[in-house]
Amino acid sequence: MRILGIDPGYERVGVAVLEKKNAPQEVLIFSDCIQTSKKLSHEKRLLIIGTKLSEIIKKYKPDAVAIEKLFFNVNQKTALNVAEARGVLLYSVSLDQIPVQEYTPLQIKVAITGYGRADKKQMLTMIEKLVEIKKEISTDDEYDAIACALTAYAYKGANKKFST
Amino acid sequence: MRILGIDPGYERVGVAVLEKKNAPQEVLIFSDCIQTSKKLSHEKRLLIIGTKLSEIIKKYKPDAVAIEKLFFNVNQKTALNVAEARGVLLYSVSLDQIPVQEYTPLQIKVAITGYGRADKKQMLTMIEKLVEIKKEISTDDEYDAIACALTAYAYKGANKKFST
Repeated sequence: MRILGIDPGYERVGVAVLEKKNAPQEVLIFSDCIQTSKKLSHEKRLLIIGTKLSEIIKKYKPDAVAIEKLFFNVNQKTALNVAEARGVLLYSVSLDQIPVQEYTPLQIKVAITGYGRADKKQMLTMIEKLVEIKKEISTDDEYDAIACALTAYAYKGANKKFST
Repeated sequence: MRILGIDPGYERVGVAVLEKKNAPQEVLIFSDCIQTSKKLSHEKRLLIIGTKLSEIIKKYKPDAVAIEKLFFNVNQKTALNVAEARGVLLYSVSLDQIPVQEYTPLQIKVAITGYGRADKKQMLTMIEKLVEIKKEISTDDEYDAIACALTAYAYKGANKKFST
């Protein structure tokens, strides 16, 4: 089973494709950080986010998608932009009829470390134990996307179904 | 010049296609309210919003799109859902490479009535003077979409360019 994890954002979207084989570890097949320049118009930035995700879905054909849920942050303008980008990401996934599951940051931390207040370092340590990573990862967004995909495996193992 | 006005929403999206001919009034070509049922999953609702808008764009081939800007409201969950839907709407427009312009509720009220605190009744009275409407309109969302499209004509007349 191949899962695409997404860490939604407006300037930066983390994406990671993981595969569960018979080995104890999940394997990282692909990861990237989709970035959109501040110089572009709002609608161009959304267009890049949607079309790049569609390309990744087409290339890696995930069986399911796991995406992080949004919470409000202090900057309301940022929150709305990220929500608009997240809508585009969900729409691109739905156009390809791939089942999608959403997880809160708390659910992700608990799934990876067993501890809801885990810090970034604790998360990284566990991710590197849980996943076979043979490529270089240059952004936190990619690690966040991997963590989200791992959470989907954890929930799947616990017989929680994906919505379709 | 044909303009598609959009009043963004999650449960209800108002859409209206107006055409400017040589007559003093703009003509309403089409209007509708895209509705999504609460019984559907979040991603299905976004899928309906995007695919219905794409169908309307394909059928009516607008030269430009005018969409209302979002403001935060008291219900943060609602605001995020509407923002996600708005992202899908902007993405669908951008996929078809149609120039889009965004207007605040204040800009729309001023453009239609000359008064930033105009109420719903004042808006309706002016819309019915400004636009030739031969069909029955059943929702406020459609009137809001018409008002947004009218604002684009007003700005266009004032030589404000559409972004592309």
